[in-house]
Amino acid sequence: MGEFDLIARYFHRPTPRAVLGVGDDCALLAPRPGTQLAISSDMLVEGRHFFPDADPASLGHKALAVNLSDLAACGATPLAFTLALSLPQADEAWLAPFARSLLALADEHGCELVGGDTTQGPLNICITVFGEVPVVNGRSTALLRSGAQAGNDLYVSGTLGDARLALEVLRGQLDMPAALFAAAQARMDRPSPRVALGRALRGIATAAIDLSDGLLGDLGHILKASRVGATVHTDIATTLIALQAEDAWASAFIDQKMQLQCVLAGGDDYELAFTAPAALRDAVAAAALSAATPVTRIGHIDATRGLRLVDGAGDSLPNTYTSFDHFA
Amino acid sequence: MGEFDLIARYFHRPTPRAVLGVGDDCALLAPRPGTQLAISSDMLVEGRHFFPDADPASLGHKALAVNLSDLAACGATPLAFTLALSLPQADEAWLAPFARSLLALADEHGCELVGGDTTQGPLNICITVFGEVPVVNGRSTALLRSGAQAGNDLYVSGTLGDARLALEVLRGQLDMPAALFAAAQARMDRPSPRVALGRALRGIATAAIDLSDGLLGDLGHILKASRVGATVHTDIATTLIALQAEDAWASAFIDQKMQLQCVLAGGDDYELAFTAPAALRDAVAAAALSAATPVTRIGHIDATRGLRLVDGAGDSLPNTYTSFDHFA
Repeated sequence: MGEFDLIARYFHRPTPRAVLGVGDDCALLAPRPGTQLAISSDMLVEGRHFFPDADPASLGHKALAVNLSDLAACGATPLAFTLALSLPQADEAWLAPFARSLLALADEHGCELVGGDTTQGPLNICITVFGEVPVVNGRSTALLRSGAQAGNDLYVSGTLGDARLALEVLRGQLDMPAALFAAAQARMDRPSPRVALGRALRGIATAAIDLSDGLLGDLGHILKASRVGATVHTDIATTLIALQAEDAWASAFIDQKMQLQCVLAGGDDYELAFTAPAALRDAVAAAALSAATPVTRIGHIDATRGLRLVDGAGDSLPNTYTSFDHFA
Repeated sequence: MGEFDLIARYFHRPTPRAVLGVGDDCALLAPRPGTQLAISSDMLVEGRHFFPDADPASLGHKALAVNLSDLAACGATPLAFTLALSLPQADEAWLAPFARSLLALADEHGCELVGGDTTQGPLNICITVFGEVPVVNGRSTALLRSGAQAGNDLYVSGTLGDARLALEVLRGQLDMPAALFAAAQARMDRPSPRVALGRALRGIATAAIDLSDGLLGDLGHILKASRVGATVHTDIATTLIALQAEDAWASAFIDQKMQLQCVLAGGDDYELAFTAPAALRDAVAAAALSAATPVTRIGHIDATRGLRLVDGAGDSLPNTYTSFDHFA
């Protein structure tokens, strides 16, 4: 099967919203008046972001999910995406499940595949995603990293650390009952981009970011961009591992240190961290409810720069957690 | 140097036109009213699109040039691009010249770097480019592949085949005087995207495509999309190799078969092939002049499907030329 047959077979899709989709030199989008276009691009590389034997269906989901997560962090409504794919060979047994789960997630979010590229080479999946953000009274409603203010509450969505737990098992650093590992692995392989929550937080959140490299590291980007500091209550944050609900298991298998590492600097969570005025707690709760996405208040923004960790007893903890750096 | 330092050092650039550039979860573009957004994405892979020891400055230029060439084929004015980069290591001796020449070409075309991704892995450069196309009287002015009509003239811009000549030398299939090789290699390494010509052809050309896989193969996409055929005069087409001006050299070093292969199916030309009504020859000439880009009429569009090659004596030639297929 040649390149063009392959493109046609798996990636030619109707694009009712785009002016022009796959098959010409460019795709054409007609942004609606009164909107801005939000754009994000993420590249997934074999051996770095996933294991060589990774399930293609999971990869298809995750490659788009991590991009949708960036739109979520911006409060944008997904519109379209391009897919550039480097593959060792045009292997239908790989392509069929990859395309199926990629496009299933795309359909779920109304995000049209409008173009891209395929080439022969080491497995590499590069998606660029486009979303729409309304401009209201001449102001963009996009959620940025730079709007956090002293006194704001600090929240995270969903649960943190599960993907890292799964990774530690795969790395042989941790042992886990099979059913629990499957749950953790599902969180690693099939993250849920918090698109609905991001949209619901427009006009409420003062800053937002999606958590890909770990809570503390990514929170650091908000603090830097907003020129503020923060206090994080680790006892609240560490209740966030979904698996920890299994108390007997948790105490038997993972120690406090591993818990903190996974939650505070696990990476691959694809949850949102965001800030909002304390006066808008009801609005945040309503947004979370409307998006069917739990959120947890884990701290607050300080005027004093720097990141402070406080345990359940109110004592300071040293911040020894480093986030993922691709070149460190 | 860590990932974020690296991004900041080489790729943080002012984006006076974009609402928001590199450094948040998404970039934000505000398309102008009455325009459509043209989008294209190309991925360049080491060992497939370039040699492992390729000059990083040439790569920086070419990675953006091939994307701008897609905008040119669409008649779009460049606006912005994202860069996703997988690198074996954060090597400044590689990154500095790569970024410098990438951004020099971007500046030349007013195309702002608004976002992207960097990761560790086999060298892979994925650029997604955004351009603007006016909508006039409710109709897009984008040049598509699908508008060619029987009786239209068929043109190509610039010269064809030089990049392939250089490749044949590098492959050891051909020998060439050093100065001529340098000229051919410059065409391979530093293609000139025909952006000005593409814009000038809006409202004149009926169809256009950029030539990346070879004239006949890429022309085939126009014919298929437009449901027409074409006749190509190979004697005119084969005068297009710039190097052939050196008659003495050409006759001494490359035979007729190699010439035809390079011109008709060389690949990596990044010229435009386009069609236009015969009644608009003066307008085409004026567009070429305004864009300072030579164009040559090499044939015409037929109602009868299929691609016919005719030599200088008016005799048919068999079409044995296959274009580049990444998975063939």
